[in-house]
Amino acid sequence: MSKQYVLVINSGSSSLKFALIDSKTGEAILTGLGECFGLEDSRMSWKYQGNKQEIAIVGDENHHQLAVNKLVEIVSDYGFTDSVIALGHRIVHGGEKFTKTIQVNEKIADEIESVKELAPLHTPANVTGVRAGLKAFPALPQFAVFDTAFHQSMPAKAYTGAIDKTLYTEYGIRRYGFHGTSHYYVSREAAKMINKPVDESSFISVHLGNGASVCAIKNGKSVDTSMGFTPLAGLMMGTRCGDLDPSIIEFLLNKGWTQEQVFDTLHKKSGFLGVSGLTSDARGILEAMEEGHEGATLAFQVFTYRVAKYIASYMVALDQVDGIIFTGGIGENALPIRREILQYLKVFGYKENEQANADARFGEGGIITMPDSPIAMVIPTNEEFVIAQESVALMQ
Amino acid sequence: MSKQYVLVINSGSSSLKFALIDSKTGEAILTGLGECFGLEDSRMSWKYQGNKQEIAIVGDENHHQLAVNKLVEIVSDYGFTDSVIALGHRIVHGGEKFTKTIQVNEKIADEIESVKELAPLHTPANVTGVRAGLKAFPALPQFAVFDTAFHQSMPAKAYTGAIDKTLYTEYGIRRYGFHGTSHYYVSREAAKMINKPVDESSFISVHLGNGASVCAIKNGKSVDTSMGFTPLAGLMMGTRCGDLDPSIIEFLLNKGWTQEQVFDTLHKKSGFLGVSGLTSDARGILEAMEEGHEGATLAFQVFTYRVAKYIASYMVALDQVDGIIFTGGIGENALPIRREILQYLKVFGYKENEQANADARFGEGGIITMPDSPIAMVIPTNEEFVIAQESVALMQ
Repeated sequence: MSKQYVLVINSGSSSLKFALIDSKTGEAILTGLGECFGLEDSRMSWKYQGNKQEIAIVGDENHHQLAVNKLVEIVSDYGFTDSVIALGHRIVHGGEKFTKTIQVNEKIADEIESVKELAPLHTPANVTGVRAGLKAFPALPQFAVFDTAFHQSMPAKAYTGAIDKTLYTEYGIRRYGFHGTSHYYVSREAAKMINKPVDESSFISVHLGNGASVCAIKNGKSVDTSMGFTPLAGLMMGTRCGDLDPSIIEFLLNKGWTQEQVFDTLHKKSGFLGVSGLTSDARGILEAMEEGHEGATLAFQVFTYRVAKYIASYMVALDQVDGIIFTGGIGENALPIRREILQYLKVFGYKENEQANADARFGEGGIITMPDSPIAMVIPTNEEFVIAQESVALMQ
Repeated sequence: MSKQYVLVINSGSSSLKFALIDSKTGEAILTGLGECFGLEDSRMSWKYQGNKQEIAIVGDENHHQLAVNKLVEIVSDYGFTDSVIALGHRIVHGGEKFTKTIQVNEKIADEIESVKELAPLHTPANVTGVRAGLKAFPALPQFAVFDTAFHQSMPAKAYTGAIDKTLYTEYGIRRYGFHGTSHYYVSREAAKMINKPVDESSFISVHLGNGASVCAIKNGKSVDTSMGFTPLAGLMMGTRCGDLDPSIIEFLLNKGWTQEQVFDTLHKKSGFLGVSGLTSDARGILEAMEEGHEGATLAFQVFTYRVAKYIASYMVALDQVDGIIFTGGIGENALPIRREILQYLKVFGYKENEQANADARFGEGGIITMPDSPIAMVIPTNEEFVIAQESVALMQ
């Protein structure tokens, strides 16, 4: 049988990531990124068989549309037109309305847009990508895969805020959680790695990237996660603050800060960047720490300590823990960060396998604890593969 | 030797709690409360040897001062004038400036007031009590005991917010923690209960009252605690939200809520009250839950689950855990709440001793786990005793 590919689209407010995914193996045969949409240097680049190309996006028309139109050409140029069987769109927020992957058309795109209030920055951008896809590839079935869907299995005690309940009934304010496709994917891979059926396995999945979240997964289902109503909550991240004493906001507003200044600081000037005063990038933090930079060292300590606390807290949500999974750019590659977190977990019997931990990087996963230790593992995530698989599954 | 008493004063914005404490035994020989200060029904009541008395507070002068002046009379009427050796004032927030108990005079009162920005509701009220005490009892040494002091031993990784570091350097925004005298007291009592020197013992202290906080105590010192820059952070409480996705505030402000509406909701309409839609009182929640009230049941579930998660998270801050301590009005009395929390901790080997757990209430403490379980215990707190002891210690 010939190869079947799904074109996976991740559309942001001024960018569009895409990948042509082998729906059987998860391999990304072609990947690319459009960026700076709407600006003068709007452009799109892509990589195929090691070769990178770039073009400018020029024109008065919506740049998302121009970029996706160009994708029709690119797919055709490389001879993939007949083997692309579907488009899969990543949608950040499905609210409580969209609890699983769904085939999209113009009407569904409108419905997705109707819950945009919950993610006013992400949803309109996501839907722009969907609409561009529907226009450019009218003959292909297209699917929406939601970052929040995996977490819709959380019990009320986990998703209910400790706040006035009318905020939920009137505005839908509750914990939704994000990174769902990633937590879903790595928990399936983890179950294979330990040879246990996923629906009898419990994991704590730790996705550490520029955004970061922890997820408690019981019998294959999400039962708690650290991101909340929005992706600002939970762990410290590249530039985001994570959990915070809400009174700090009150204090700053009383000091005369504007709402915009306060939330700009919490979204974009906090996390690694804010604590270190140096960079939002974990690699930069680790390098500076080796050179003795105090702010970077503190950022490393605060970050790892908080991750370890979250992992421990999710143990109470599970009857047993079959594995702690590290994934995401930092989780897959940053050895000192995993090492420090495992140090904290010594109180629960975790013992690092130093060699295995050092070996797990650049896309190599594996178990990174000793044979007589509870298990922690590294599993490279593949969100695009989930989107491709979910799309194909719905076609059948 | 004759008895020596310390008059302990806890002065709020429109109230004043007081107790005459035996500095050796901690017994409260006389207790009382002034309330509704500044209002028409301003009054003060007190209890001595089972008899309760009440008077109205009338006059144009500051009602705190009138109340403390009345205390001079009361102390004299019962014949305690010669045996009261000091006044101890409870101060909620000492910032980073006041790291231990200090003798107060007018100048020190001014200095305490100078950090009022960190607790604008509490500090001025506390200082009003100090000034009234200095005027009414000019011959007695007086001491300020800070709720934050015990937590000044926290390492930077625990007190540093994951935010722009200039918020700390410019405004002092960091985790301070509260309930310090309570966590201090119960950890000392816990060490006695397990026959270990406190400076070689590690505990997780869980103070559950109308306000609630958890504290990780390593070798007798606070190394982390759940309240933060203010007492709003951490656990769900009677009416306070505790930890919250900061974006919820942004969302509500964007909805047109005023700052006052938002923070009034988070401080006064959240927690048990907000989730249950019924009451801020844990007893009321438990009663309604028995009758099948859905909101009360959810409030119970959210509260206990969050406490259990916090306890687990603090295990990573300790090398070993010698005991989990329940204290505060709820922690000392609410059997179903302790039982549910211990259920969550089964994953760490904790096993409830049902009889011992049921027996520990109304001021009776004790170990509430089985002999083959890690230890959890109930210890009635006595913050006033700590204030009295600290005062006497400084006099010597």
